[in-house]
Amino acid sequence: MKIDGTPYRSVWIDPEDGWSIRIIDQTRLPWTFDILRLTNVREAAHAIRSMQVRGAPLIGAVAAFGLALAIRADSSSEALEANAALLAATRPTAVNLRWALDRMLARLRRSRAADRMDAAYQEAASIADEDAAQNRAIGQHGITLIQQAARGAHGRPINILTHCNAGWLATVDWGTALSPIYAAHDAGIQVHVWVDETRPRLQGAALTAFELGKHGVPHTVIADNAGGHLMQHGEVDLCIVGADRVTRQGDAANKIGTYLKALAAQDNGVPFWVAIPSSTIDWRLTDGVRDIPIEERAATEVSTVTGRAMDGSIVTVRVAPSDSPAANPAFDVTPARLLSGLITERGCCAASAGGLLNLFPEQAVTLAG
Amino acid sequence: MKIDGTPYRSVWIDPEDGWSIRIIDQTRLPWTFDILRLTNVREAAHAIRSMQVRGAPLIGAVAAFGLALAIRADSSSEALEANAALLAATRPTAVNLRWALDRMLARLRRSRAADRMDAAYQEAASIADEDAAQNRAIGQHGITLIQQAARGAHGRPINILTHCNAGWLATVDWGTALSPIYAAHDAGIQVHVWVDETRPRLQGAALTAFELGKHGVPHTVIADNAGGHLMQHGEVDLCIVGADRVTRQGDAANKIGTYLKALAAQDNGVPFWVAIPSSTIDWRLTDGVRDIPIEERAATEVSTVTGRAMDGSIVTVRVAPSDSPAANPAFDVTPARLLSGLITERGCCAASAGGLLNLFPEQAVTLAG
Repeated sequence: MKIDGTPYRSVWIDPEDGWSIRIIDQTRLPWTFDILRLTNVREAAHAIRSMQVRGAPLIGAVAAFGLALAIRADSSSEALEANAALLAATRPTAVNLRWALDRMLARLRRSRAADRMDAAYQEAASIADEDAAQNRAIGQHGITLIQQAARGAHGRPINILTHCNAGWLATVDWGTALSPIYAAHDAGIQVHVWVDETRPRLQGAALTAFELGKHGVPHTVIADNAGGHLMQHGEVDLCIVGADRVTRQGDAANKIGTYLKALAAQDNGVPFWVAIPSSTIDWRLTDGVRDIPIEERAATEVSTVTGRAMDGSIVTVRVAPSDSPAANPAFDVTPARLLSGLITERGCCAASAGGLLNLFPEQAVTLAG
Repeated sequence: MKIDGTPYRSVWIDPEDGWSIRIIDQTRLPWTFDILRLTNVREAAHAIRSMQVRGAPLIGAVAAFGLALAIRADSSSEALEANAALLAATRPTAVNLRWALDRMLARLRRSRAADRMDAAYQEAASIADEDAAQNRAIGQHGITLIQQAARGAHGRPINILTHCNAGWLATVDWGTALSPIYAAHDAGIQVHVWVDETRPRLQGAALTAFELGKHGVPHTVIADNAGGHLMQHGEVDLCIVGADRVTRQGDAANKIGTYLKALAAQDNGVPFWVAIPSSTIDWRLTDGVRDIPIEERAATEVSTVTGRAMDGSIVTVRVAPSDSPAANPAFDVTPARLLSGLITERGCCAASAGGLLNLFPEQAVTLAG
């Protein structure tokens, strides 16, 4: 997608040297647009752990490139396994990370050490290209939901609520939840996005508002507390969010607070969709509330807020008393029963084992296993 | 309640001069404990509007004292009406403001101008004293709910979630939602409070955490997004919140986001109680979602956060891009169907017209009207 007219992806191979990896430092958005250079696996792991890159699909792609960087330094089988394990341990909730590394390992374990580096760069580039293509397809399938809402709206804008950032910055390109919104906007449908600010890390206020603004999509930032009230008063036509992991029965782990919005959507008859590439589906898991590991992040993310002071400097301020503890579960699980459905690269389906198998029949083997 | 061993109320007559009004500047908590002096009605109106004092019961008491200050300057009937109207316009959602001013007017309209000042101070002091006594009674009734939870807990602490600040800082003393918690803690029941930070103004992180900490009650600050996840995993035994206005059928307007927590409580079988003095009940209204006016506050409350920087200075930082608009509905309405019940100064009751009339039979006339 474009920033001030220039097209970008969120991760790419440096065109000058042909091997180092470039990312946008998302911890500095929306204030500073910094491009970082990753030259080894430790830098790649740090970028994921510190959330310079975040978003389930992007984490997978950066981990794949990180493994290519690792192999560039040491192409042995021992190093391959150790570095894959290092990258897998950076974030626990997103399944795409595991998925991308498994795909890399499946290819690279069969390669001779001498061929591994080329194979690794090829596979990582394929993962990135496929992610972009899948997200574009998600947009083409999801736009039908917005077109449907627009038919009953008699020319007024369609109000769509989203949580956290599942835009192009969370993926390699296009985004998941925002892809249908970009597709609708580009097709001339009037849309307006309610952007949950998404405490504690404020990815909504910082990233979603940034990328929607740069693309020219009308939007309004709200406190995470406000969505239920807006739905009660008919101000939300549709909710679309992303996910970090979806079980085979359609339970969706996404940024903490998603579950609360899904409850409000159900209470007010507002459709609630989860947009994901199929790499986000964990076919091994059934009950998401029981089985998806939830990352507990640092308490300081809750007790502090970082933003731009009047003088332009970036400042971190404490918002709770110094002696008050804080807790920071980073994700929650929305049970499939609260979802209108899933938007995938193959189409929309019910959030259920049946709905998913209908689109992904090749997984029947996994489910039977 | 006590701060560092010294007992305080949140509003009082200056004991030195016997007429000016003292308040704690709640916009500077938890960082600075500043006591302000109000000497005229404009300062009282400003204190309410700027949220130096906030919380439905406290707003009512400060408005009453503000009217006494007004009469001290001009005891005419014209000034009485004009200044009551000025104070009534400061905040639209809390009904206690209207209730306190109506009670003052009912008494003062019958007084001769020469007697009005004494009558006004007497009536305002009665409103304050009665609020403290009512809140103490709320604590004595509400403690039974905590005792009940403790019986099934086999000695582990009872986890109570609260939203915003309905503590002693929101009232004249004791608090509403926090009054049963203080009562339980003081009675030796182990309690632990999940404190919603309560964006945008962070009254939970700033005020509830402050007053619980000063009283020694164990607590943990969480993002507003986290409560649903905690309830899904059995980490909340009970929710208690306050309200700014409750309709005669039991719908409760409270700080934005309360509705979302009530939905999660219902979805997980967690009791959800609203603690209020009866002055918070608006007997004229039935359907809260339809009829309670919701204050829309400044967008900058959402797009910025104020806190304490590393160097100890209080800094306001922007958290959303400068060109992204924000919306800030300050309250939402939780329908009575989601409430386990109401805790009032006369006891606990169902959140329904029948439940309320059972406790307040004298209101049958209002309901019939």
